Amino acid sequence: MTIAHSALLTDLYQLTMLQTYHAERMNETAVFELFARRLPPQRGFLLAAGLEQALDYLENLRFTAEERDWLAGTGRFSPDFVEALAHFRFAGAVHALPEGTVFFANEPILRVTAPLPQAQLVESRLINLLHYQTLIASKAARCVLAASDKLLVDFGLRRAHGGEAALLAARAAYLTGFAGTATVLAGMRFGIPLFGTMAHSLIQAHDREEDAFAHFAAAQPGNVTLLLDTYDTEAAAHTLVKLAPRLRERGIAIRGVRIDSGDLAEHARRVRRILDDGGLPQVTILGSGDLDEDRIRELLASGAPFDGFGVGTRLDASTDAPTLDMVYKLQEYAGQPRRKRSEGKATWPGRKQVYRRTAADGTFAGDCLGLEHCPQPGEPLLAPVMEQGRRLQAPEPASAIRERIRAQLAALPAALRAGQTAPPYPVEVAPELRELTERLDRKPH
Amino acid sequence: MTIAHSALLTDLYQLTMLQTYHAERMNETAVFELFARRLPPQRGFLLAAGLEQALDYLENLRFTAEERDWLAGTGRFSPDFVEALAHFRFAGAVHALPEGTVFFANEPILRVTAPLPQAQLVESRLINLLHYQTLIASKAARCVLAASDKLLVDFGLRRAHGGEAALLAARAAYLTGFAGTATVLAGMRFGIPLFGTMAHSLIQAHDREEDAFAHFAAAQPGNVTLLLDTYDTEAAAHTLVKLAPRLRERGIAIRGVRIDSGDLAEHARRVRRILDDGGLPQVTILGSGDLDEDRIRELLASGAPFDGFGVGTRLDASTDAPTLDMVYKLQEYAGQPRRKRSEGKATWPGRKQVYRRTAADGTFAGDCLGLEHCPQPGEPLLAPVMEQGRRLQAPEPASAIRERIRAQLAALPAALRAGQTAPPYPVEVAPELRELTERLDRKPH
Repeated sequence: MTIAHSALLTDLYQLTMLQTYHAERMNETAVFELFARRLPPQRGFLLAAGLEQALDYLENLRFTAEERDWLAGTGRFSPDFVEALAHFRFAGAVHALPEGTVFFANEPILRVTAPLPQAQLVESRLINLLHYQTLIASKAARCVLAASDKLLVDFGLRRAHGGEAALLAARAAYLTGFAGTATVLAGMRFGIPLFGTMAHSLIQAHDREEDAFAHFAAAQPGNVTLLLDTYDTEAAAHTLVKLAPRLRERGIAIRGVRIDSGDLAEHARRVRRILDDGGLPQVTILGSGDLDEDRIRELLASGAPFDGFGVGTRLDASTDAPTLDMVYKLQEYAGQPRRKRSEGKATWPGRKQVYRRTAADGTFAGDCLGLEHCPQPGEPLLAPVMEQGRRLQAPEPASAIRERIRAQLAALPAALRAGQTAPPYPVEVAPELRELTERLDRKPH
Repeated sequence: MTIAHSALLTDLYQLTMLQTYHAERMNETAVFELFARRLPPQRGFLLAAGLEQALDYLENLRFTAEERDWLAGTGRFSPDFVEALAHFRFAGAVHALPEGTVFFANEPILRVTAPLPQAQLVESRLINLLHYQTLIASKAARCVLAASDKLLVDFGLRRAHGGEAALLAARAAYLTGFAGTATVLAGMRFGIPLFGTMAHSLIQAHDREEDAFAHFAAAQPGNVTLLLDTYDTEAAAHTLVKLAPRLRERGIAIRGVRIDSGDLAEHARRVRRILDDGGLPQVTILGSGDLDEDRIRELLASGAPFDGFGVGTRLDASTDAPTLDMVYKLQEYAGQPRRKRSEGKATWPGRKQVYRRTAADGTFAGDCLGLEHCPQPGEPLLAPVMEQGRRLQAPEPASAIRERIRAQLAALPAALRAGQTAPPYPVEVAPELRELTERLDRKPH
């Protein structure tokens, strides 16, 4: 499966609005910004992710002949509009936060500057791509902070929302500090390290658990993690202790065990003792089963001797906060700042920039949301990444994004690093931006 | 974007287990069943969906040469195992609930009977496909029941978890009784009716709201829904009343308006009055903005004059219950029933069938989970759909599935139809199944 570029992966109203712009020759420069209106109550910060797929989408966006024929056949569009779509390309500019940058409510993570139709059409898929990876990176960051130096692996394919979500979740989690994923296609597509253990079915398919362990170990001698909880977790640990010398004679070392049910902390303590007493102190213990950052923090605080965790469902669906209030709004058209005033959904107009101040020890000390042309104290975070529809740099390697995220998480205020959501991180609005907003509100429509 | 068939859209452990089965020549018939271990507290019933994509996946599953080369290059797999994957096909049998069948905890919605490696490999993607569409159909069913005869449209693309999720959500919602979707590619791919309105950006890009309405209306004369809440909802309704006669002279009729923010019920009442007083009683009112079944029920109970609703984020991410505890478990191997006994995750062994009793008035009266070869009172729900890797019937048309779901929802007990989750629907376990389970528990492993 490729990550889709189809121009029809959009909402119908984008096309009907494009037909309007086409008829009215509204082709002036529009500026749209993509941001989260608010953070979910369960999140103290967000981590921008998905820029790579967003830029790839913009570079490759085309209406195929088949798609244009289909559009024509719907009877909704004029022939000359459909004909014009054959030449549709995204040829605009993009500014963005580098992937892995921490951000907060109302701070744009992406700005598109392009002729109105181009900037309009891409709304739906840009949000779709950036929303999901940002959602997962932000959830993964909480897991990484909770797990400190323990190994984390994405196990979420089966309950991710479709195949594309599984691939993108594996990517977002890996960038954020997960060691890898179990999703094989994410390994092939994105070069993410793969991890896997075994399923209960392999053990059930054997009459004796010991035979299952021996067969599985023999088939991948370098890389064996055995699952202990199919019938009785401690009994399975004793089986492994008994089996290990025979495997060792054949050159097979067991790397780890996985515990997937019951009182994980208690089982881990008992299994650790059985393995240590049985001469297997090097065998690691991996926990899994509906884990998330809260359970991981709890397990480690209780002293449970886990070396790592598989995190699946609650990561790939971000179950405690499964969506972000992320939007893409027109902020300027034909040189004039624009503002939506809808109740509870009003926007800050104009081309904006995020300015971040940092304390002497490197900790983020507060942001200012200001206008691009009125610089504020602090580092401006949005940077140009695309001009005339072409990227300004080659895609960033994963290692660079992983290193950025490590540094970003280290620079968070202590409360946010501890998984708390209060006190909220300070974000102020620059006076010039407030003045512009008030000025626009006095204009009639 | 196609719905993926890649054999690598699976978990690594499926492939390492396959290598074990290959080495041990474990190729006997395995029976796996796919079911939900429990219902989320927010759901009183589930609706099976996604069978079409699951069967399509099974029929088309192949390891491409590129994929095999990549697997070989990982160094994890033996050359003869990778070579054997060139001939890998799914050649098993499948039994399933027809798409759109109501089901409950522990009731299989799909059973795979195939040589162990074939039945094993497909676990991850089968769950991924059936879990997500079942999740969305089950959520959509609650919306359909809440909305009674009002028009419902899927608006969820932008905050669905990736592109594939958006397409599959559009399909699941349409089958369940939504009138259509805003996602254009779902219209092309699945033949789902498309609906769309306009975005705030089109209005913001004009200096005067009236011009925006007039331009948009002129560009799609047959099919105009105007958005009222960009600046002031009631003022926009008056603008429309003023504009309507001029449009009518040009043969343009406004079909509807949309309200997306503020106190939706109050705005709808005021707008209805303005439109009625302005000679536009035929113009419909569509509500949107973080809607779900609870908000819809509340709005309609308050008498708010809505004719339909766009449901987006909370449908496509099923935000109140974003995952189901859906699993795929080995129940028989080489003719012997098998059972996992993990704490809190034990399974019912053997090839099972769901038997549903119906009261005289057609209402579902209770289910029995039994063994396939020990019939129980009631209608058996699982039916054969695939043999030797080929479908037994052509894909069902959407109209047939929509009609089935209409009938299934009508046959639910009144409390479930009303969106309640208690009392729980009665599902009993057949005595023969209990006896088999106890017998297996006495066997050593």
